[in-house]
Formats: sequence, structure tokens, C-alpha cells
Amino acid sequence: MHKKVAVLGSTGSIGTQTLDVVARHPDRFRIVALAAGTRIEDTIEQARRFAPDVVSCARETDVATLRAALPVSVRVASGPAGLLAVAAESGADVVVAATDGAIAFDAVFAAVERGIRIAVANKELIVAAGELFMAAAARCGADIVPVDSEHSALFQCLVGEPVERIAAVVLTASGGPFWEWDREAIAAASVSDALRHPTWQMGPKNTVDSASLMNKGLEVIEASRLFGLPPEKIEVLVHRTSVAHGFVVFTDGNVKAQLAPPDMRLPIGYALAYPDRLADRPYVRALAALGAELGGSSATLAFSAPDPERFPCLGLAYEALRRGGTVPAALSAANEIAVAAFVKGAITFGDIPSVVARALTGTPDETLTLASVRAADLRARELALAEVEARFEPSAN
Amino acid sequence: MHKKVAVLGSTGSIGTQTLDVVARHPDRFRIVALAAGTRIEDTIEQARRFAPDVVSCARETDVATLRAALPVSVRVASGPAGLLAVAAESGADVVVAATDGAIAFDAVFAAVERGIRIAVANKELIVAAGELFMAAAARCGADIVPVDSEHSALFQCLVGEPVERIAAVVLTASGGPFWEWDREAIAAASVSDALRHPTWQMGPKNTVDSASLMNKGLEVIEASRLFGLPPEKIEVLVHRTSVAHGFVVFTDGNVKAQLAPPDMRLPIGYALAYPDRLADRPYVRALAALGAELGGSSATLAFSAPDPERFPCLGLAYEALRRGGTVPAALSAANEIAVAAFVKGAITFGDIPSVVARALTGTPDETLTLASVRAADLRARELALAEVEARFEPSAN
Repeated sequence: MHKKVAVLGSTGSIGTQTLDVVARHPDRFRIVALAAGTRIEDTIEQARRFAPDVVSCARETDVATLRAALPVSVRVASGPAGLLAVAAESGADVVVAATDGAIAFDAVFAAVERGIRIAVANKELIVAAGELFMAAAARCGADIVPVDSEHSALFQCLVGEPVERIAAVVLTASGGPFWEWDREAIAAASVSDALRHPTWQMGPKNTVDSASLMNKGLEVIEASRLFGLPPEKIEVLVHRTSVAHGFVVFTDGNVKAQLAPPDMRLPIGYALAYPDRLADRPYVRALAALGAELGGSSATLAFSAPDPERFPCLGLAYEALRRGGTVPAALSAANEIAVAAFVKGAITFGDIPSVVARALTGTPDETLTLASVRAADLRARELALAEVEARFEPSAN
Repeated sequence: MHKKVAVLGSTGSIGTQTLDVVARHPDRFRIVALAAGTRIEDTIEQARRFAPDVVSCARETDVATLRAALPVSVRVASGPAGLLAVAAESGADVVVAATDGAIAFDAVFAAVERGIRIAVANKELIVAAGELFMAAAARCGADIVPVDSEHSALFQCLVGEPVERIAAVVLTASGGPFWEWDREAIAAASVSDALRHPTWQMGPKNTVDSASLMNKGLEVIEASRLFGLPPEKIEVLVHRTSVAHGFVVFTDGNVKAQLAPPDMRLPIGYALAYPDRLADRPYVRALAALGAELGGSSATLAFSAPDPERFPCLGLAYEALRRGGTVPAALSAANEIAVAAFVKGAITFGDIPSVVARALTGTPDETLTLASVRAADLRARELALAEVEARFEPSAN
């Protein structure tokens, strides 16, 4: 029996790695639907290789090109209706949610309501509206399996465990390029400084978020939503080598940890195969699995507490989590604006937390709904943009 | 609903710690039966405190003393029949098997055949006859939950996991007092040198076994039996601080680890509460859970490969596991004789592996049964004693 897989965001980093995993296991998985954005050539190539039943793109104007390139049996769609067709109407067993931002919220929500498993790589989805998704998933019997390496780690540690016995969870952080820099140097860091990530290869947004530790802050909120934990039960530890991805501390004093090489295909494969596991990695001796250099006879794992003074974004995320409602969505949206402004040279690295803080101040405490979260996202972007403009100095970078 | 607990070996180290755990959870557990050895005063005190229905002692001659000291409603027994009454006839839901040696094999086997969970701390039971116990447990629906910290670690990492996806398991070892000594110094080590264990407090037999790494060798065999793994899927890593107790490497490249403070009440509590967990440990911040000194802001976990040249006992255990049949029982029995001889000053520390090797050479490859394992145990003891006598020098220590 093949598991039928639909991918939202198929031409992005997680999307293409998902297709890699599926291609390596033609006996276990079949791609039934692909939703891409505007990279139409890539989309056509993917569709020809994986022969899905449904293909979707972002713009209506690209539909004719797709239509002409693909067999007549393939359903071609676009925009929100296309996302919905891929996620909820393709007969998928698993939807890999790997689009950016809020664009696929409705489509994913519809899939959850049909009880379809979501392999969730779209952080915003859980940060902004995780409570709604988790409630719907519980109601409709849909699995929400995280693809983020840290959350996959926690999910793996919790398999078969009584979740009410969690004392705390720990997310590890690489610490990013500024881990040892002082506060002034961090505030004045250049774009190219911020884009040097020690272990993972990611897009510029995620790499800058790693440098500011906002990435970890968003993950704290994500962990809270996925596992139903209050902020005081979620810790962050800096672990430079990114071998251990997460720990669960149980109420009986035992701790479970998950370790893996920094390769997103592992959590993707896990989310697809769960509750089974794939059998596609050559066995590495234990020391290598712990990050020892090839042929080395020892390995060391080091962990340290993050410094809230030098990395205020992490504290802002905890604040957003404590306030709840639509504040986490505002945090995520404002941070997007702030990072884009930093990458363009409009603000300094040190301005990022200030821009985000301004948006949090301007966000009221209100009930979370799919409508209020959209409004909060828009309002936070406006507030953040206004703050960016106020801080703009053409000489910033 | 109380879980009814019977303890074999109640006055020993694991036995008394089991009673500690039960005393802390009067709402969850009740002691229904205790089997002790010859410490009759301790046995009476335990029986008065925990009010079991059945109490047993080793010698028939102590029965009258127990009888006189305990309420008439308490069933008092002794010897093999007493062990059987405690393990299989007391209505227990869980039997904690914490006697030494082979004395309780029949009683534990009878409990397994009734589908009663065994919390197994009696290493010999699994080393010598694990295949028989595991087969009976599978047939009769009895859980075999290990109490050894390393095996509890592996068991915890495997909860909810597909066991056919294990690529390998890793047992950690403290390395013992001779970890950095050279071969000649180890061979000539004194009894008091061998009794200095870096992290765990244990009896002399176990402490000497830790110094020779035979302890880890026996645990390799135990892991093989408990989890159905061949020798090449079981690794040992030295980890001086004894924070991480075991890892499971899965076929999909993910690794799970278990960490805990060196306190046997944790694996005991887990074996009693499984599949639930207790909620009796104050939450420690993650760094403390990783072994950081109180108030420290960082923690390091270090792992290294053991040296087979300096610690030949580990290799002997792998050899016994590869040969199978009754050879693991012979290894365990010969090692008991060798360690006792070393502690008495009859042989050198370096003689221990030689004495064990002699017993392995004299053990034929034969099918494992409850009868053949007893015979192999006796023969190995005789062979080991003969080898000890041949090596005896009154000046050895």
C-alpha cells in the first residue's frame, strides 16, 4: 500500500527534499498532488517526474503553460482553489505543508478537517494559528507531525509516552554566527555576517532569524502549540554542533533526547513514515552518530544557556507566547518585515527586535480566530513597516 | 487501582530501593509479597511496614522467627517454594526480580507463565536464560521491563517505536577506575583500587565488574536478549559522567537517547509505572538534567570508544554472545568465581579474564534449556575454580 502524498510548496527547499525522500521510496510513497508557486519550469519537471493527479501554481496566468505541458489527465489549478484541490481534494494521506506565510492556512485547515495527516514545515501556520489547527486535528483525528528538526525531535521523544508527564521540553539552538559577539557588535552586524550559519543551509530569512535567535523564539511558540505546553515548560539551550535537536524532561526525572545529522530529509521521512520509520540510512557507528569526526574515537556534546541580553528576540517570543491570542502571529509578521528591511539595508541588525517590539505593543489582546489572526498579521506588518521607516538610514549597511 | 508488587530480594540494594519507591506512592502501589534471604530482622521490619500477604526467607530454620513476629494472616514460607509463593501465587501485577544468581529462575519463570510483569534487576536471569524468558513472556503476554539503568534507557527509547527499525543500540559505561590506566597497571591493580567506582554506589561484585568492564559485557548479552539483537548491533561507549545511559540508532538515521541522574529508583519507578510515568521528581532545569554543576551555565557530555586490549572482559562477553547456547551462562558463572577470588586476594585483577576465558574454552556449544543452563553454570564454576587454584599465589594482593 502506497501512502499518498501531497506537497504544498513543492519547488521550495522542504518541497524538493520531500520529493527526494519519495523518489527514494517508490514502494512506500506516491505523489498525488503538487502545489508550487511561480517557478513554472521546475513545477513542470516535478510533475513529469512524479506524475501527480493534481498540479497547482500561484498565478492563474501560468495555468495555460502547465496545461500545455502536462498530460490531459492531470488536473491543473491555481491560487487558493488550487491549494485546496492539492491539500484536501487529491485523496492524499499526508499533506506536506511547506509554503511560506499564511497563504495555505485555509487549504491546510480543510485537509485537517478531513482527518488528513499534516507534515508541517510551515512554521507560521503553527505559530500564528496553532491552537486552531491542533483543536481541529484533535476533533477530526488528523495527525500533526512536525518537520522542523527540533519539533520532530520532541515528537519522536514523545512517541508512546504519556504527554501529561512532560515536566519540560528543551529546544537546542546552534546559536548562530553571533553567539560569541558582544551586544554592540551584534547590533551593528552586517547582512553578510548574519547570513553565515554554522551548520544548516537555509534561505536568508531563516538564516537571519537564526542569527537573532528569533528562529528559536518562533520554535518555542511552535512547541507550545504542538505539545500543549506553557512557556515555563519550554527551554532553549545553545548547542553549537546541532547533533542533539531536542530533549523531553519527564516528571519522573528521566530525560529523552533525539540526535540526528543536520539533514531535513530525516524529519521529512519520519513525518511521512510515522508511526513506522524508513530503513534507508546506512548504519553509522555510534560515535559518528554523535558527531565524532570520521575515524575519531571520541565525541563531545556541549550545551549552554542563551544570553537574553544579547538576543532579545528570544525574550520577545516568550512574551508573545505568554500574551497569546493573536500576539504570536503579530510577532511572526513583524519579524518578517524587520528581517526583510535588514536584508535590504534599511535597518540595522539591532533594530530587528525594536521593530518587532513596536508591533507587539500595538497588538491588542484578543481571541484567536482564522479572521482575527489575518487582521493581526496585517496590522503587525503595518506597524513594523512604520517603525522601519522611522529608523531608516540609507547608510545603515 | 493499586498495582500489586512482589519483591524477590527485598533486603538487597534494589529491593530496599523498590520499597522506597512504593512508600512514596501509596496511592499507586501496594506490596503484596516479599522474599528475602537471611537478614531476618530487616525482613520483619519490612513486613511490618508494608503489610504484605506473603513473606518468604531463604532458610526453613528462620520460618518460626518470622511466624512469631508477623500477624497470623501473613503467609510465611521459605526456600524455592517461598520464592514461588511470592512471585507467582501472591496475586502480584509486577514482580521485581532482584535476587542474585540463579536462585529465583523457576519462580520468575512461573510468574512469566502467568503473564505477570517482571521488573528485572537480576542480570544473570537474562544473561544466562534470557532467550527462554523472552520466549515465555511473548507467549504468555508478560512484560519484561529492565531495571538496569542502561537497559531501562534503551527500553524507554523504544517505547512506541517499531523494533524492527533498530539499526543498533549503544550502552554507555562509566569506564570504571582503570579507564586511563595502562595494561600492566590494570593487571596488577589492588582490590581497593578496583572498589573505587566513579559514579555508582554498588556491592563489591558489581564494582569489580565495572572496573574490568565485564559488567558492560554482561549488559551487552542482556541487551541482546531483551531486544532480540545480534552482537554487531550492540555498541559500548565510555561516558565518564554517567548522565546518558543508552542510545538507539534507527534505520532512518535518527538516534534517541535517555539521560537521568545515577539513582536506581528512577528505572525501578519506571518499571513499576510503565507505560505511565511517576510524577515525583521536582523539575530540574535542562542544564542540571544534563549534569551541569548547580548554577552552571553549560554542560558537556563526552563519549569514547572502549579499548579492547586493556579491557578483555568486554571481548569475552561478545564472544559468549556470538557462541550463544549456554556460553553466556558459563561466562557469568566463571566471572562470579574469578571476582570472588580476586576480592579474596587469591588471583590478580589481570587473572580475571584468563579465568573466564578458561571456562569458555571448557564449555561446549549446546542448546539452551533450564536444565542445560544449570549444568553449564556448575561446570563453568568448577573450571573457573580449577583455574583460580592453578594461578593462586598467596602474595597476589
